[in-house]
Amino acid sequence: MNTTPPWKLARRAERMNPSVIREILKVTEQPGIISLAGGLPSPDTFPIEAMREATARVLRDQPREALQYAASEGYGPLREWVAGELGAQGLRVDASQVLITTGSQQGLDLAGKVLIDVGSTVAVEAPTYLGALQAFNPYEPEYVSVACDDDGPVPDGLAAARGARFLYALPNFQNPSGRCISAGRRDALVKSAQALALPIVEDNPYGDLWFDEPPPAPLASRWAEGTVYLGSFSKVLAPGLRLGYVVAPKALMPKLLQAKQAADLHTPGFNQRVVHEVIRDGFLLKHVPTIRERYRAQRDAMSAALTAHMPAGCRWNTPHGGMFFWVELPPGVDAVAMFPKAVAHGMAYVPGAAFYADQPRANTLRLSFVTVSPDEITRGIRMLAQTLKEAA
Amino acid sequence: MNTTPPWKLARRAERMNPSVIREILKVTEQPGIISLAGGLPSPDTFPIEAMREATARVLRDQPREALQYAASEGYGPLREWVAGELGAQGLRVDASQVLITTGSQQGLDLAGKVLIDVGSTVAVEAPTYLGALQAFNPYEPEYVSVACDDDGPVPDGLAAARGARFLYALPNFQNPSGRCISAGRRDALVKSAQALALPIVEDNPYGDLWFDEPPPAPLASRWAEGTVYLGSFSKVLAPGLRLGYVVAPKALMPKLLQAKQAADLHTPGFNQRVVHEVIRDGFLLKHVPTIRERYRAQRDAMSAALTAHMPAGCRWNTPHGGMFFWVELPPGVDAVAMFPKAVAHGMAYVPGAAFYADQPRANTLRLSFVTVSPDEITRGIRMLAQTLKEAA
Repeated sequence: MNTTPPWKLARRAERMNPSVIREILKVTEQPGIISLAGGLPSPDTFPIEAMREATARVLRDQPREALQYAASEGYGPLREWVAGELGAQGLRVDASQVLITTGSQQGLDLAGKVLIDVGSTVAVEAPTYLGALQAFNPYEPEYVSVACDDDGPVPDGLAAARGARFLYALPNFQNPSGRCISAGRRDALVKSAQALALPIVEDNPYGDLWFDEPPPAPLASRWAEGTVYLGSFSKVLAPGLRLGYVVAPKALMPKLLQAKQAADLHTPGFNQRVVHEVIRDGFLLKHVPTIRERYRAQRDAMSAALTAHMPAGCRWNTPHGGMFFWVELPPGVDAVAMFPKAVAHGMAYVPGAAFYADQPRANTLRLSFVTVSPDEITRGIRMLAQTLKEAA
Repeated sequence: MNTTPPWKLARRAERMNPSVIREILKVTEQPGIISLAGGLPSPDTFPIEAMREATARVLRDQPREALQYAASEGYGPLREWVAGELGAQGLRVDASQVLITTGSQQGLDLAGKVLIDVGSTVAVEAPTYLGALQAFNPYEPEYVSVACDDDGPVPDGLAAARGARFLYALPNFQNPSGRCISAGRRDALVKSAQALALPIVEDNPYGDLWFDEPPPAPLASRWAEGTVYLGSFSKVLAPGLRLGYVVAPKALMPKLLQAKQAADLHTPGFNQRVVHEVIRDGFLLKHVPTIRERYRAQRDAMSAALTAHMPAGCRWNTPHGGMFFWVELPPGVDAVAMFPKAVAHGMAYVPGAAFYADQPRANTLRLSFVTVSPDEITRGIRMLAQTLKEAA
């Protein structure tokens, strides 16, 4: 009797692959390695005392509601809070347009599920967020990378995206490039997208982590009915809670909601109530500035170390928020090939090639300044510079 | 300028629809309605004090780890616990085969994502769990319902599923039918599936809720490499934590893991650590018997009320565990058409038609005995009986 079952994988499974970053993070878990690779928020920023108080209150005052099945849309007061917060940032939305998700990664998955057909086109930045490509890939799109400069996608370049299901953009302190799109460029991009009837999926995990001034209002504030907006609590509270949200035009909300229900019924109500309890009385107004201050100092340390140690021919922009520097190495230097040498020197980064949907640029790499201390940042950059000098 | 974006939905979105149960639950939220519709566990069974202690301990001893990004596979000690627990139930698995999911609903989504191609066949029971159909539908399968009797799928009936990607089965106290497949039938089913080289997706949310004796060992224990097994903490602890797991043959684990990572990076680490803290020292050995005792009494109340009040021509089996009675009404009675009349009498049920992938049987309905008290159950069944008598 044949007892070996012919598990036949769906064709889309061919498009699923292990995350490069994940594989790199395994390497960097070796003791003694200074990792500038991962995008892990500093655990020193986690509001542990506020979490203690909030969980105790939720389990005292509303334990049954918090532990029971709940609405797929999310916890009402948290949806209201999100709508209010976004209003203060220039994005007027009704709480009925807010769908709470299991991290904003789930928002990417749901958007892909509802909008991408096999062989349809998705337009992305170059470079773009790797996790978005991972979320979209199982829905088997074709990608078109739109031309980008230091201020983000070039408005004229959107023509290449004509007919795409949407443009995926991360305007604030992009992962991986760190750049923040200016207000003028946002205006021009939205006008160009409107002329092309090209909808936008706008991802904003880092917008609150500004160091100098808040970023311009979201693309969605310029074209509400043409934009799906994704937000997250991972960077301002803690990622281990897996709490994010989608703000959707009313026309899209029912299908996103049905996709959400099919995916996991609802995001844990316990987490939603705890987070609402933490933030309801203005906690973030005191808390987020402490994160900004810490990350600004770490950004400064990395900026100073890059300036002091990197060899000629390298190029980077100093980010005004977020978590990442993006470094262009001299032409011909391959950041993937150089990676084992950097690890041998005691540091790690993420090679930039993984962040391109097509036409990867091998001479790029991403550095995170949020996980380790200024002193370790300086030592890590020295090791990187040494590796580069030896590679030259 | 055209500012109305042509959001074009993916074709799969046509297969997403609002849950019938969800719509019904909205009706039954009216005050004064005795709802035997929902499958909500009794909140009296939620281990609130244990949750309080566990969250306090996690936030005292491992707050940074609990609030940080974590591995997509899940929290190691929880995976070990699951492997140990399943071993005690006759299913030998290694912790490396355990993938922690955001509720077992996510396990269904991931299995569908990895295994279902457009137009491929999925074999299901008749009736079957509605939430599984919702999870699979976006992947656009064709369904074939295999012939079932009171002991589950008929082994010879599996021939109709030849070539299907898998058979989806819920052997223990099935939602909606309440039936538990006997050991002999399990043996025969697995032999038949092996002869057909038909893999199995086995869903087991209710197995711990047995009233008389534990159910037979899982199908997966008879054919480990041919079965994906899904489990859940929703019914033995609390559904608001959204914690479930997939046990996968080693050949399938990498793709399921990549699909998981793309879907939500990982299940909240906070929840995983809290639940592990609750259960690590044998808590469920004391706790689950209290749930069984409560539900057994409620099952008895429903059984007695059905026997006392239901008119002739109705048929039901008394379940030996789980949460549901499945009632066959006299031929010609349409449970959907009768529903508003039942609500007018003050009670609600779920019409059975929604639980069929094809060829729905209109004269069926599902009753839950876990959410309301024995007294309310008795009153609810009297109202149902009165509705039926008026409909006859």
